[in-house]
Amino acid sequence: MENNKEAIFAVGKQSVKLPMPIYIRASASVVGEKEGKGPLGEYFDMIGDDELFGCTNWEEAESTLQKEAVTLAMGKAGISKEDVRYLLAGDLLGQTIATSFGLKEFEVPLFGLYGACSTCGETISLGSMILGGGFAKNVVCVTSSHFASAEKEFRFPMEYGGQRPPCATRTVTGGGAFVLSTEKGSNPKALITGVTTGKIVDMGVKDSFNMGCSMAPAAADVIAANLRDFQRDPGDYDKIITGDLGEVGQKALFSLMEQRGFDITKNHMDCGMEIFDKGQKGTLSGGSGCGCAATVLSAYILKKLEEGEYKRILFVPTGALLNKTSFNEGQTVPGIAHAVILESCSTPL
Amino acid sequence: MENNKEAIFAVGKQSVKLPMPIYIRASASVVGEKEGKGPLGEYFDMIGDDELFGCTNWEEAESTLQKEAVTLAMGKAGISKEDVRYLLAGDLLGQTIATSFGLKEFEVPLFGLYGACSTCGETISLGSMILGGGFAKNVVCVTSSHFASAEKEFRFPMEYGGQRPPCATRTVTGGGAFVLSTEKGSNPKALITGVTTGKIVDMGVKDSFNMGCSMAPAAADVIAANLRDFQRDPGDYDKIITGDLGEVGQKALFSLMEQRGFDITKNHMDCGMEIFDKGQKGTLSGGSGCGCAATVLSAYILKKLEEGEYKRILFVPTGALLNKTSFNEGQTVPGIAHAVILESCSTPL
Repeated sequence: MENNKEAIFAVGKQSVKLPMPIYIRASASVVGEKEGKGPLGEYFDMIGDDELFGCTNWEEAESTLQKEAVTLAMGKAGISKEDVRYLLAGDLLGQTIATSFGLKEFEVPLFGLYGACSTCGETISLGSMILGGGFAKNVVCVTSSHFASAEKEFRFPMEYGGQRPPCATRTVTGGGAFVLSTEKGSNPKALITGVTTGKIVDMGVKDSFNMGCSMAPAAADVIAANLRDFQRDPGDYDKIITGDLGEVGQKALFSLMEQRGFDITKNHMDCGMEIFDKGQKGTLSGGSGCGCAATVLSAYILKKLEEGEYKRILFVPTGALLNKTSFNEGQTVPGIAHAVILESCSTPL
Repeated sequence: MENNKEAIFAVGKQSVKLPMPIYIRASASVVGEKEGKGPLGEYFDMIGDDELFGCTNWEEAESTLQKEAVTLAMGKAGISKEDVRYLLAGDLLGQTIATSFGLKEFEVPLFGLYGACSTCGETISLGSMILGGGFAKNVVCVTSSHFASAEKEFRFPMEYGGQRPPCATRTVTGGGAFVLSTEKGSNPKALITGVTTGKIVDMGVKDSFNMGCSMAPAAADVIAANLRDFQRDPGDYDKIITGDLGEVGQKALFSLMEQRGFDITKNHMDCGMEIFDKGQKGTLSGGSGCGCAATVLSAYILKKLEEGEYKRILFVPTGALLNKTSFNEGQTVPGIAHAVILESCSTPL
């Protein structure tokens, strides 16, 4: 008993290693029309014909993204909701209403989380610890965002036709769900082996359109912490994959990592830069939102891990902490990022 | 290793028992003027002279509640921020901005949570599992609410002078912080021995003023689940303490528990009914908000546990899941509640 008191699975200053294999047993992604027409279109499980997904308003449409993604992921894993001990979920809307109304019908104990666009990493981090701690066998992690509900929540209603500068990103309409399990199942997608939890990092950026630059410092901080805690070099990861920095944020990240003595230019990837074609109308600096990292992880990154093309990656969803009120009151836009180490099941290191 | 796969610390359908003693080592509460004049006034650690706490707006004032509560709680525990592995925190505002701007200066890895007014229970639940899983030695859980920022967020700005019906509750201006630890320290307040995590329960209540009735079904559901999972009777707890049902919600809870075959009328207590005097101006059905359960737990309930007057209690913060948009779009107000079993260190059962 005494031994446990030493937090035996803590690593370095802000990481943990999981005490047993935690599998991503299945996952699913549901996206909107524009995402479906992007370069990853063929990999998503479901693509909506329009942005409403058969609903009457944007918020319900976003709830549908979560509901469908969870249903699909459980189906792929061959489990029912009775097998799921906890849902860990979040979205970008005030009071996370996309989550509340999207998940209530499952009747599964729920931990609601908020980490802005980093929430996908936060759900997987806490889900892994719940499983690794012996508190559950299966949990489902789900996050979503929706272009139109996010514009309404953070900027202007769609009808206003607000203009956005080139450094702005486009909120991805998408939901991604992941069945995390202590059991391998017949066709596991990846192993979760470690977690590095981010701090709020505020470098004083006040431009709510330039979220890439507000999040890059938090991404740099947590990536550096992960490398330090696990005593690794950037090259020990096939890819270091941020959530939604976009082109502008990526430049800032490279510079901030260089200041810390790390070169990640060769193996960095950003989900926001992958999900849309460069120049795809209205996508500007790239994609963003809780749904960006979640759908790209589900559809593309896990596929590469399953096929063994990636052996080990660092997945780092990134979030910008603001709302309309904080912005109007002149607050800065701090960032936060949560890192998860994912390894291939087929070709272990 | 194989053994762990069985989720050995899961109990029944939705509970866990902690695998080792998890202590609430210290706590702190910071409240507003009206709460300070209520019946628990003498127990709070800090009472503001006004609702602004030296800030220029309500949101910053609420951030101050979290900052001060965390600082005080760490001081009482005799630990510094470097000893805290994680902050688990949340509030009621959109994108939980009270948390983001209140905690950023601590530079401690943060898990942001949202469970409406149940968030205090959610932070302690996840914090306990992180500690019990061997991932940390100390975490700090903190939640807050503020009457004026909540009115602005959910109903009308203060300047509007909106009227509220008698079933309405008054959002508590308060922040409560808890140092959870695997180490007993010199003066532990209570032991956390079990957790029952709530589901979203929706019985179709649409009146956003009558939050007691929207939350009572979720409270009944999680209390019944706790009794079932641990095979206990209501009398096995000295008190079953909900967060903020108020007088109206308490009546609904009693009726819903009776339907399930349980009589909790003798040992039920509601933080919302304790924090204000009956008839105290503007408090109507009682207090509510994340800060209600958190400050009453810190100031009053933990004192009773420390003194051994309570030997074992079930602490059940309750949350109403809505926002302005969901209300305006005609959605219901579902509830969620998270239960934590707290036991006295001085007179163990």
